[in-house]
Amino acid sequence: MKILVLGAGLVGGPMAMDLARDGEFEVTSADISAEALLKLREFPGIQTIKADLGDLPELVALANGFDLVVSAVPGHMGYRTLETLIECRKNVVDIAFFPEDMFGLDEKARAMGVTVICDMGVAPGMSNVLLGYGASMLDHLEKGIIYVGGLPVVRTWPYEYKAVFSPIDVIEEYTRPARYIDGGRLVVREALSDPELIDFPGIGTLEAFNSDGLRTLATTLKGDYMIEKTLRYKGHIEKMAVLRDTGFFSKEPLNVNGTLISPLEFTSRLLFPKWKLEPGEEDLTVMQVITEGVKDGVRQRYTWNLYDRYDIASGIHSMARTTGYAATMAARLIAGGLYQEKGVSAPEFLGRNPVFVNYLLEGLRRRGVVYRESHEMMG
Amino acid sequence: MKILVLGAGLVGGPMAMDLARDGEFEVTSADISAEALLKLREFPGIQTIKADLGDLPELVALANGFDLVVSAVPGHMGYRTLETLIECRKNVVDIAFFPEDMFGLDEKARAMGVTVICDMGVAPGMSNVLLGYGASMLDHLEKGIIYVGGLPVVRTWPYEYKAVFSPIDVIEEYTRPARYIDGGRLVVREALSDPELIDFPGIGTLEAFNSDGLRTLATTLKGDYMIEKTLRYKGHIEKMAVLRDTGFFSKEPLNVNGTLISPLEFTSRLLFPKWKLEPGEEDLTVMQVITEGVKDGVRQRYTWNLYDRYDIASGIHSMARTTGYAATMAARLIAGGLYQEKGVSAPEFLGRNPVFVNYLLEGLRRRGVVYRESHEMMG
Repeated sequence: MKILVLGAGLVGGPMAMDLARDGEFEVTSADISAEALLKLREFPGIQTIKADLGDLPELVALANGFDLVVSAVPGHMGYRTLETLIECRKNVVDIAFFPEDMFGLDEKARAMGVTVICDMGVAPGMSNVLLGYGASMLDHLEKGIIYVGGLPVVRTWPYEYKAVFSPIDVIEEYTRPARYIDGGRLVVREALSDPELIDFPGIGTLEAFNSDGLRTLATTLKGDYMIEKTLRYKGHIEKMAVLRDTGFFSKEPLNVNGTLISPLEFTSRLLFPKWKLEPGEEDLTVMQVITEGVKDGVRQRYTWNLYDRYDIASGIHSMARTTGYAATMAARLIAGGLYQEKGVSAPEFLGRNPVFVNYLLEGLRRRGVVYRESHEMMG
Repeated sequence: MKILVLGAGLVGGPMAMDLARDGEFEVTSADISAEALLKLREFPGIQTIKADLGDLPELVALANGFDLVVSAVPGHMGYRTLETLIECRKNVVDIAFFPEDMFGLDEKARAMGVTVICDMGVAPGMSNVLLGYGASMLDHLEKGIIYVGGLPVVRTWPYEYKAVFSPIDVIEEYTRPARYIDGGRLVVREALSDPELIDFPGIGTLEAFNSDGLRTLATTLKGDYMIEKTLRYKGHIEKMAVLRDTGFFSKEPLNVNGTLISPLEFTSRLLFPKWKLEPGEEDLTVMQVITEGVKDGVRQRYTWNLYDRYDIASGIHSMARTTGYAATMAARLIAGGLYQEKGVSAPEFLGRNPVFVNYLLEGLRRRGVVYRESHEMMG
């Protein structure tokens, strides 16, 4: 089976390698950056194609002849890339994490008879799968809580933050109003709000804040209280609040001596070298997904804990492993014909079926990404 | 006698008013901003002229016919403005606080037979006068220490800082390497370095950091240890260090999608509304000048404390009062023929003569700017 991976960056590259490793698929990796593709050239079973994925006719020509596409394009390109792939009748696993509503493409995907799984990373992604799974094991979901963060192992002043994602996408988390569910109702709060300190074994004290991470969960799941909070080392979020409050994250063009400039673009340029996770630089991913509620009259809690570290042997970053392998396992679910749902699926849809959940968790475990489940009866 | 005041801003305006108040001078205030001049229009004894002070021929024509000029132009225009005024044979009191070496114009000022006093504000300015005065009362200066800050009375997150000066000039303090004297030798340290917490009665705990405030004192005075530290509310300087470290204060043009932009200019535009001291917004000036050393074999310490507040009655900011009235009193020293030194004088030169020091202190006291002197014998 032939799989096309769009984007050969820090996440796209490891996905292509994972899909090619067992020789089960013919993998082609496409990116506009020849340099990014260079690293994949020598990898057995991977073809590379330099292509401008923003050029839709070029994308159509490129996708032709592939059975499945994994899209890891930048968020701002995500929606129209996916729409084009659907029009090309391609099954797709998407981790562009675009801001638009994925279900806007559901009807088109059904009409084309294709299977699309969106937001299929770690969070969004596995967080949705596990929240959906936990909810399915309860008669009523009282609490669905996600704590998640990707962090550098070595903390460097001032930001103590590095990522495999573009600063613009990270800053989006710091500016977009955070939506969560309280008392069954949608609550909108400012991003970076409600900071709380939480200790994680092996990591230490982290600071959790409201981010707009529920995404589809806010509408696809029924719960009394559902929230996602992002984790950073303590102190990071105040610095981000300072920059935001001063206007450094604004998209409103600023007139500087007659030149119009976007503060967000400007700031991203300055933050890029500060935040870029370098090859060989160790990172970690920490996530805790909690579902609490009543089953057969008994209150109980399911908790999944993920603590993943940079893989020294392969040199693949934790954020790339936890995000990318969730997507490649979902791709295998489709490729193997196990998941055949037509239309656009959010990851929590897979969570409704233990077969899919175990397939994903087992596949991730074999790749060293281990989710530890605990189940408590609370009387 | 006719006095020309260049600059009708938050400091220039109050200077013109002070010089005109007693009817002792015919005062003309010049500025490129009609709006700034508007406030002075109704004030008895003040003429206003809209003029581009950056246009040197226009400046020459403007200065013609005045006996004395007080220059409060922006720092970057300061040096060439002063040079032009000297070539026009004008006596000048200068508070442009330009970065260039004032003594580069000394020979020209002597040749033209004019008296120029530079850096004649509060700090630099009165801080130099008092350090020079204290040193003159000792056989040997062991310590000469200046702590100074202008602050808003109301502390507002995140910066807890407001000023009557342009953000670019303030940021200059946060980036220019700080020079001080230790063991009689010049030491250069990074700006914002060596933070120390100091409590001031009526203000609370402030954070002092190295700034490049000695200026001429580094070469005109002999002392074992001489330093100026700037005062801010605790926490301000780390935020400044974060911005500086990230590159927001850099003068090196940054390429943002093909547009070259100066980070410093960009950042100043964003900080301007945050840092601008608004009309009616209360501010304070705090300064402590300490001179310590041996006189006739006895170690002793002279200390001057200034704690000045916004004047509610006149609505004149403390930073404008403490800076501007030091300059207007120096202007009176020249106008009255008391100070006749030809060439360029740094304020510490006036400090050598108790007559000048008392004239300045008494004039400031009558304007509500009170320096409290204490003298300790240390055995």
